[in-house]
Amino acid sequence: MTTAARIAARPALSRLLPVLEWGRGYGRATLSADLLAALIVTIMLIPQSLAYALLAGLPPEAGLYASILPIIAYALFGTSRMLAVGPVAVVSMMTAAAIGNVAQSGTADYAAAALTLAALSGLFLLVMGLLRAGFLANFLSHPVIAGFITASAILIAGGQLGPLMGIKVQSETLPALLQSLWAGLDGANPVTLAIGVLAVAFLTWVRKAMKPWLRGLGLGPRLADMLTKAGPVLAVAVSTLAVWALGLEARGVATVGAIPQSLPPLTWPSLDLTLVRQLALPAVLISLIGFVESVSVAQTLAARKRQRIDPDQELIGLGAANLAAAFTGGFPVTGGFARSVVNADAGAETPAAGAFTAIGLALAALFLTPALVHLPKATLAATIIVAVLGLVDLSALRRSWRYSRADFLAIAATIVMTLALGVEQGVMTGVLVSMVLHLWRSSRPHVAEVGLVAGTEHFRNLNRHDVQLHPHVLTLRPDESLYFANTRYLETLILDRLAQRPDVRDVVLMCSAVNEIDITALEALEALNAQLAAEGRRLHLSEVKGPVMDRLQRSDFLRHLSGRVFLSQYQAFRALTGMTA
Amino acid sequence: MTTAARIAARPALSRLLPVLEWGRGYGRATLSADLLAALIVTIMLIPQSLAYALLAGLPPEAGLYASILPIIAYALFGTSRMLAVGPVAVVSMMTAAAIGNVAQSGTADYAAAALTLAALSGLFLLVMGLLRAGFLANFLSHPVIAGFITASAILIAGGQLGPLMGIKVQSETLPALLQSLWAGLDGANPVTLAIGVLAVAFLTWVRKAMKPWLRGLGLGPRLADMLTKAGPVLAVAVSTLAVWALGLEARGVATVGAIPQSLPPLTWPSLDLTLVRQLALPAVLISLIGFVESVSVAQTLAARKRQRIDPDQELIGLGAANLAAAFTGGFPVTGGFARSVVNADAGAETPAAGAFTAIGLALAALFLTPALVHLPKATLAATIIVAVLGLVDLSALRRSWRYSRADFLAIAATIVMTLALGVEQGVMTGVLVSMVLHLWRSSRPHVAEVGLVAGTEHFRNLNRHDVQLHPHVLTLRPDESLYFANTRYLETLILDRLAQRPDVRDVVLMCSAVNEIDITALEALEALNAQLAAEGRRLHLSEVKGPVMDRLQRSDFLRHLSGRVFLSQYQAFRALTGMTA
Repeated sequence: MTTAARIAARPALSRLLPVLEWGRGYGRATLSADLLAALIVTIMLIPQSLAYALLAGLPPEAGLYASILPIIAYALFGTSRMLAVGPVAVVSMMTAAAIGNVAQSGTADYAAAALTLAALSGLFLLVMGLLRAGFLANFLSHPVIAGFITASAILIAGGQLGPLMGIKVQSETLPALLQSLWAGLDGANPVTLAIGVLAVAFLTWVRKAMKPWLRGLGLGPRLADMLTKAGPVLAVAVSTLAVWALGLEARGVATVGAIPQSLPPLTWPSLDLTLVRQLALPAVLISLIGFVESVSVAQTLAARKRQRIDPDQELIGLGAANLAAAFTGGFPVTGGFARSVVNADAGAETPAAGAFTAIGLALAALFLTPALVHLPKATLAATIIVAVLGLVDLSALRRSWRYSRADFLAIAATIVMTLALGVEQGVMTGVLVSMVLHLWRSSRPHVAEVGLVAGTEHFRNLNRHDVQLHPHVLTLRPDESLYFANTRYLETLILDRLAQRPDVRDVVLMCSAVNEIDITALEALEALNAQLAAEGRRLHLSEVKGPVMDRLQRSDFLRHLSGRVFLSQYQAFRALTGMTA
Repeated sequence: MTTAARIAARPALSRLLPVLEWGRGYGRATLSADLLAALIVTIMLIPQSLAYALLAGLPPEAGLYASILPIIAYALFGTSRMLAVGPVAVVSMMTAAAIGNVAQSGTADYAAAALTLAALSGLFLLVMGLLRAGFLANFLSHPVIAGFITASAILIAGGQLGPLMGIKVQSETLPALLQSLWAGLDGANPVTLAIGVLAVAFLTWVRKAMKPWLRGLGLGPRLADMLTKAGPVLAVAVSTLAVWALGLEARGVATVGAIPQSLPPLTWPSLDLTLVRQLALPAVLISLIGFVESVSVAQTLAARKRQRIDPDQELIGLGAANLAAAFTGGFPVTGGFARSVVNADAGAETPAAGAFTAIGLALAALFLTPALVHLPKATLAATIIVAVLGLVDLSALRRSWRYSRADFLAIAATIVMTLALGVEQGVMTGVLVSMVLHLWRSSRPHVAEVGLVAGTEHFRNLNRHDVQLHPHVLTLRPDESLYFANTRYLETLILDRLAQRPDVRDVVLMCSAVNEIDITALEALEALNAQLAAEGRRLHLSEVKGPVMDRLQRSDFLRHLSGRVFLSQYQAFRALTGMTA
């Protein structure tokens, strides 16, 4: 039975709550696998959560809170067994961009707006899920996502140069970033910069070279892997100790400072109408981007283990996670790539691993926060920079240039507009450009004149194949559905070809590539039929698909058609040329 | 030689100035045909021009001016031999809606804005023509145009109830129209209303029954036809005489009043930046709507005589006409349906008929205007009402409902939005809805499992035809190009079908309906290929079109493909099933 069939056959409740399914078979072996994965992910998530909260312009503890309840909510409703939900770089940055327009970072209004944004995002995802409207995300093409992630990563990394140097920078757009970096350069704090640069260097080494080095020291692959994952924690610990021991705060090094020792608080997102109106569009974009990223990760991981996920149920899982964030002092969350891969690699078997991670982070929020008072913000900035630079993928530009100019244009436009105008405009431009390019392409379709490939019953383009033709029969194969955007183009093209061929008595439109004939095209076909009839020529159709034929039969067209509709092009050619089999 | 070929072969100058071509063969017979047509069209245009100027919110003489130089400009640059250019109902109404936002009707600013609008419209058309961008108009589908014309005609006719009753009404939207009619009802002038109702009744009779009645009196068909065309002039003459003889102006009947006796003045459109910015979008919409209407008329008339028009050169002709209107006290113009049909029916052979019409109207502007002082505005309103009600076509709704729900939705949305929000919003909604519906449809394509039709080499849907299959071979025919909007949908669908068929070893994608594979779809195909390979299954393609194959060969996909690419589906089936011919 397929996943889809299994999902359909499941009782309604366990369909809405996948936990009821995997929870039944939960045993000891699974438990220990999940516990180990949770430990590794918890260690990795502590610095990451703090860093992404700062990236979103929020106090660091918001990052921990956004990683506790949301993980549990997703574990209950989501269909992926390995996805790890929480704050991620791009969504955190979009959050900062959206809230930055309605409130000042650091104020209570700002934190309140973050809750509202998470709530709106959660509601939107939930509604999309209940309407089974996950297909909407399909309009974000790979080029748009690739371009958007690359440009966002550049903006995020650039923006983190601020805390890395101890200055304030604007990073909504590249021009603002460069200008504020240039203006603020004089105020850079050398000690902060030293910590930041050392942290970047160390973390880059961890990422690229630590594992082989540990293996070289004789450690087992599993241990080496675990220690590598703990690299960022080491950077946090060492730099915190250094700040504390050397009293670097007195020399201008900004630190995280006192974090409340508390479980996630119960918060209530404001649904003030003005605020909702201002945040509605960003919430939709954040939801869609977050959903696409999350589903891609979940599908990749599920495919490894021959599991399947249900994108519409994923919407519900992510919606629940965001609502959980909104009610527990968090901000918008989604399934993250790095953390999910770590979770899967560490051997997570079920969403229970996520629940254990949540418990680990809750313990950290309760007991570990005093140790983070002296943690320099520059270290967290370094964590983000190293993480997001891994997302910059300029090879997509090169690959798409080779494969298709339209795809290249979509990536380039998305990158340029995101850098020039910001994340929201960037992603909207990308979607628009890719749709317009698709419509544009289908508005000037390829049309082949086809003939019979010798020795077969197959018809192909006379310019590419050695084919058999007949002087009185012209067969054209329009390589596109016939619809309003290409109707006039095709009409002109067909009439021009016919005008060059006065001997042609029978015109056959081979419809193997025609998946739709809309009413605009139908009227044009009627006009073409009438004009050909007036010239003593007949119009025939061949290989009309079932759904297209059903529709034609509901119109008057077939009654007026001067020629016939043939099942196959071969039958048309045989009948019209008097060829014998 | 085809028109296109002939156009291409023509020297550049005569391509830009079609007059150089038809002017050479001009003789006596053509002259007398053109003169007669010009006389008939002139008689018809006098009341129409005045009426459309009032509809646009301008003084009546503007309508005459807009019909003189623009006709000559089109005659020089246009490619249609029978198109009659001038003010038309829908464009006049769009003009009123656009200028109404920036100036008060009756002021000098209002008339100046009309000139600017015509100039912008002319420039836009000219630039489109020089860029050969006439295809842009293809994005206005028949449903959108039909819906837009119907809704506009309702608004126009409703708005003319104002002058018909001697009250002021708002007609930008249906709610505004109904509200202002209701509020103004008490102030209706009974004498004006009587004139108006009589004129509507008479003109309706002229339209429907005058010709058979004249034939019944024993008149020849040609004379009966000419007299019918002169019907509106008779209404104008009789009602003017009645107002003058009975002194009806004293009883509150509004008349056209004094019109300057003059040739078109030389005017200079303001290109003030604020004004240009306000009028740019309306100018684009007016240009596109006007162009589409004009080209449809021109193509219909040309097809009757086996002539062809060149849409891109038409843009230049209409652009020149609008610039001429801008510099001679006019307002936006286009090729009108009624006047062009009359011109053609009256026997016009060349654009010279248009030039003679222009001379006729110039004479009217010089000598006839004093006779129009007492012409009641109610008569002109009646002319418009009878003319535009002929454009209301609700049968398009019925036909499209039967043929395709998507087309129906596009018409309905355009009608509703035009009536509810006005002409600009209406047409933009229509374009957007029809594009989104097209993308939506292509995002969930039909996929057929196909088999061999017995006794042929043809493959069809197993649900519709009696076909031969093989347990180890699954052939799917996706009925759409593979692109970002349908990638995930197809991926899920193919994997689900495969999961139900564990025996399948070879999967063939029959690509006869695949006109494009974009990079998003390419990556999905690569993933599918890898997953099938991991399951010990092979992926094959068949009937890949030339342009699609060219592109695949520029990627790595074919190198990694586990199966083969077959020229025809029959060859694929034979090779994979071990069938002998």
